[in-house]
Amino acid sequence: MTKPAAVIVDTAHSPHARLCPVPVDTVQLEDEFWEPRRRVNRETTLPSQYKHLEDTGRLNNFRRAAGTLDAPFEGIFFNDSDVYKWLEAASWELAAGDNPPLQAMVDEAIELIAAAQQPDGYLNTYFMFEREAERWSNLKDMHELYCAGHLMQAAVAHRRATGSGKLLGVARRLADCICNVFGRKAEGKKEQTDGHEEIEMALVELYRATGEERYLRQAQFFLDVRGRGTIGGGAYHQDHEPLRELNRMTGHAVRAVYYAAGAADAVAESGDEEMHAALERLWGNMVFRQMYVSGGIGSRYEGEAFGKDYELPNERAYTETCAAIGSLMWNWRMLQLDADARFADIMEVALYNGVLAGISLDGQSYFYQNPLADDGTHRRQPWFGCACCPPNVARLLAQLPGYFYSVSEEGVWAHLYAANTARLALPQGGTVVFKQRTRYPWEGDVELEIVAVDGTAAEEEWTLFLRVPLWCRSFSKPKINDATIEITRPKQGGADYMAMRRRWQAGDKVKVSFIMPVRRVECHPHVAENHGRVALMRGPLLYCLEAEDNRALDLRDVVLSPRARLWTDERAELLGGVTALVAQAEVTPLGSDYDELLYFTAYNHPKKQPTQPIEITAIPYYAWANRAPGQMQVWLRTR
Amino acid sequence: MTKPAAVIVDTAHSPHARLCPVPVDTVQLEDEFWEPRRRVNRETTLPSQYKHLEDTGRLNNFRRAAGTLDAPFEGIFFNDSDVYKWLEAASWELAAGDNPPLQAMVDEAIELIAAAQQPDGYLNTYFMFEREAERWSNLKDMHELYCAGHLMQAAVAHRRATGSGKLLGVARRLADCICNVFGRKAEGKKEQTDGHEEIEMALVELYRATGEERYLRQAQFFLDVRGRGTIGGGAYHQDHEPLRELNRMTGHAVRAVYYAAGAADAVAESGDEEMHAALERLWGNMVFRQMYVSGGIGSRYEGEAFGKDYELPNERAYTETCAAIGSLMWNWRMLQLDADARFADIMEVALYNGVLAGISLDGQSYFYQNPLADDGTHRRQPWFGCACCPPNVARLLAQLPGYFYSVSEEGVWAHLYAANTARLALPQGGTVVFKQRTRYPWEGDVELEIVAVDGTAAEEEWTLFLRVPLWCRSFSKPKINDATIEITRPKQGGADYMAMRRRWQAGDKVKVSFIMPVRRVECHPHVAENHGRVALMRGPLLYCLEAEDNRALDLRDVVLSPRARLWTDERAELLGGVTALVAQAEVTPLGSDYDELLYFTAYNHPKKQPTQPIEITAIPYYAWANRAPGQMQVWLRTR
Repeated sequence: MTKPAAVIVDTAHSPHARLCPVPVDTVQLEDEFWEPRRRVNRETTLPSQYKHLEDTGRLNNFRRAAGTLDAPFEGIFFNDSDVYKWLEAASWELAAGDNPPLQAMVDEAIELIAAAQQPDGYLNTYFMFEREAERWSNLKDMHELYCAGHLMQAAVAHRRATGSGKLLGVARRLADCICNVFGRKAEGKKEQTDGHEEIEMALVELYRATGEERYLRQAQFFLDVRGRGTIGGGAYHQDHEPLRELNRMTGHAVRAVYYAAGAADAVAESGDEEMHAALERLWGNMVFRQMYVSGGIGSRYEGEAFGKDYELPNERAYTETCAAIGSLMWNWRMLQLDADARFADIMEVALYNGVLAGISLDGQSYFYQNPLADDGTHRRQPWFGCACCPPNVARLLAQLPGYFYSVSEEGVWAHLYAANTARLALPQGGTVVFKQRTRYPWEGDVELEIVAVDGTAAEEEWTLFLRVPLWCRSFSKPKINDATIEITRPKQGGADYMAMRRRWQAGDKVKVSFIMPVRRVECHPHVAENHGRVALMRGPLLYCLEAEDNRALDLRDVVLSPRARLWTDERAELLGGVTALVAQAEVTPLGSDYDELLYFTAYNHPKKQPTQPIEITAIPYYAWANRAPGQMQVWLRTR
Repeated sequence: MTKPAAVIVDTAHSPHARLCPVPVDTVQLEDEFWEPRRRVNRETTLPSQYKHLEDTGRLNNFRRAAGTLDAPFEGIFFNDSDVYKWLEAASWELAAGDNPPLQAMVDEAIELIAAAQQPDGYLNTYFMFEREAERWSNLKDMHELYCAGHLMQAAVAHRRATGSGKLLGVARRLADCICNVFGRKAEGKKEQTDGHEEIEMALVELYRATGEERYLRQAQFFLDVRGRGTIGGGAYHQDHEPLRELNRMTGHAVRAVYYAAGAADAVAESGDEEMHAALERLWGNMVFRQMYVSGGIGSRYEGEAFGKDYELPNERAYTETCAAIGSLMWNWRMLQLDADARFADIMEVALYNGVLAGISLDGQSYFYQNPLADDGTHRRQPWFGCACCPPNVARLLAQLPGYFYSVSEEGVWAHLYAANTARLALPQGGTVVFKQRTRYPWEGDVELEIVAVDGTAAEEEWTLFLRVPLWCRSFSKPKINDATIEITRPKQGGADYMAMRRRWQAGDKVKVSFIMPVRRVECHPHVAENHGRVALMRGPLLYCLEAEDNRALDLRDVVLSPRARLWTDERAELLGGVTALVAQAEVTPLGSDYDELLYFTAYNHPKKQPTQPIEITAIPYYAWANRAPGQMQVWLRTR
């Protein structure tokens, strides 16, 4: 059995995808931002999560199902999915290199899972023994297909990362079981789907990993059957309207983006224009009406859901870490379909802010919710009863090198920036080895050197596409081998790729400098809480004020005038090394008059205290809540 | 059996209450604001609600429990409470005068209730037959004591309003059953209380209505036992800290204010300074940190709960109608304790705004949530599965005349203003008949004439206390019989009563004019959504913009400058007759550039459209959503 390419979403044979991801193990991150985090993920996060899986009975549930442990089921009914997601994360990590301790955990987990599978392929440790009769009886609530989907994703990852077919075999047997049970009523099957989407993208990838078209058809069935009150659900389950008719992202946010991601996977195979158009509509609604400046989505605590358009409270933001990851996953699929830099931009914003804030610097505690303001009470936790987020973050960090580039018949696409060496096979043949040198996200200078090139890639012209981030308003004209070149940049001032086409040779160097000023970001006036406020960004990073750097201030009383001077401050010792932002601002402390006045008029207006000039220090949002608890504020008052 | 006084909270014999309410039937409202609403309540709302009780099986549940109907239990497990609350409302209505159709409904309901009571006094139609063994087994969730409390309140109201002891007998038997079951573990009883407070204030009033001290002790037990994880609940159930230690209003808002109201009742009897001080603290937290400008409370959808301090979103305000009513009930009790006008002011704000918005002008549909901004989708409903709010509003309107005055050894206290005739018995003996003439809330002129006075009231000096509303910054010096008098007004610019002491004679007339300008109300800067915004109020009324009066505008784009001219416009034909507010404002429509820009900087700032002067019309907040659906906005942008 040859080892397939360890790609995150395999569109190599998808007729309607313009791009194809590159294997995780062909890109070696060598930077100071991501690679240290990946090391923490590998050495600390994944082993500690495995211990949580063991300590909380999640692994025991498999032992119980296999009959080797006589104990009650422990935890929540969808806890199998945490094991699968961890296994997927660990598998991607194994793709990057030998890791015997991790390998041992992976092997143990797979043994447990395989032993728990039923003769008919069914596998869910909750619905065993006394609950056997309840299998597939409550699709709306019980997450059986959701758990199955995570098993399939883990199996595909494990196969692509290691070449082993063991877990893939388990997943196939479960998928076959599902295909036998679910389908059109006319065929005598359950015409239903799961309350929590996930199975759709899993089945498309399982099709890609196995070539079994039945799985693709089944994914399409699950996508099409939803939305007619199919499962007795409503907008919360995206069961109120068929996908093709949806106009806005609605209901439980993680479900909604997993749904959209699965649909994008299906479109890559089918080319279904109606579904593609629906995804475009939904993307526009999410990005232009419902997304936090952090890339987080799903503003409502109630139902962990999308709210109304422009409903984006800050302190009360729900913005589940998993939802930001789901957005990234969906945008990754849209990017492969269309090669449109818009999608890479949303990925980047979510990655550096909404997702990365979800894990502590030490890699051992997690946010479930990611507010954009806090009074010091919201803190990361080492684990959760509903532990979807921790292994989801671990999975993303494990996959990360796979998101940096794509290839196509046209050439090579660089989506993200961080120092790395990449050995990329081009579809037309041949290999090109890049060395990317940059201090991104702290600096905007990027150099790409062609270290080696061979085969067709050396003989024929191809295009190097470099993403111009949406945040970048100006950049130096790129140089190839120190000669400035003119590039076409079709879109005015939007996210885009600059295209450099030539016959590339070893030693060729491309240099570009994305000018990275501090940006004062304003918000659409219909976002009620952000009226008269401004957020600070630099490059892809969102910044915030945190109490620790701004002592003795109530951050809610800080005013940043439009003319305030702002500068950067590289702080190697701070929060693992960050470029902080420093600004001249003002604070108008509230006097004690305000203590007993919530509402007032000109006649009893509380006395204003003298306004004082102060210096404020902002840190990257992803790094907040890693020190003593205190206030945090992203959106600052301005004049 | 003599008919007792039909008072809302009987503090006549409470050693620690300074004031005593006056019977509902001694005040005849003769005004054009409240009396038409009371007529609708009597003629439309109460009969239509009784029909809902019948149609939804709420009455059938009693027939079933009595064994006269063989049918399953219908609806939610706490549905009995809706019948009781309706019965309380109808009873207060009966106090006001003969009403044979309503009397027949009341009598029927009481027959059904009495027939459903069990031999040991237990009464809850959900826990019958197959669920009998589950009685009192899940105090946290199942609302048995809550339902019992509503029965007791209804029984006390029915006794005071009609003189009949029939329902009171049922309530006593249930109360005795409860006293036998709940108490200290050392006595072999259940040391628990209910997840939803209500029983506390009910038992204190039952004690007052019967003289049975056991009920007062039981109320005190329920107040004291809570807050130590007693019921396995948390902050949602106010079970996280004992009442005496609480520093802020927390958890489910209706529960929290019912709890506080019950504690205030207990303090009137006990004089418990520690509990009194806790109530003062909690009141301050609610009023200065957690109350909407409408008087609404409980900002969070999640858990129908109080949020953090200053967490007061507008469109996403939960502000349950019942919570505003509960606040009014609590404030009424605090007012009787302390005779402090602060409490009357909060009552007034809640009554005219937060509560009154809860019912449509036609008296047949209801808001459960009361947002302060809307996109036109939030509409009143004719009934709810959880129908706590409709009978709560009906109850308040039925009680309303009872809230206008109190009496004390010192004299007579006028809390609220509306044309009425009141025949008040003074504690020291004698009766005084007032005629109050005013167009309040539309105008601030108030005349009180002593139409008749007899007994000790005619022979001795007593004080007439007239509340100066907190909203009133200036008023004409009061005149007695057209002679200006000097009055002492101890507090500077706060809510207060002006005190006029003399020997009053028939024909004496007091006139005062509370100047009633339009007020631009600002909000504490830590309320994130209200930064840079202003609300309009006049007298006790909060105003809002509604689409119907402001066509072709997006209300979110309206800017009211601090110097904008504002005037009143009496509109007899509008919304049952209102004084509207008209203002010169500006609107800056958002161009289509904003459609695809949620965040932007100076470099890609959307083009601003020209600002246009416009005239805007604001209506009283209570009257919104009585016409075609459309946007509504309380807090307007300002410069």
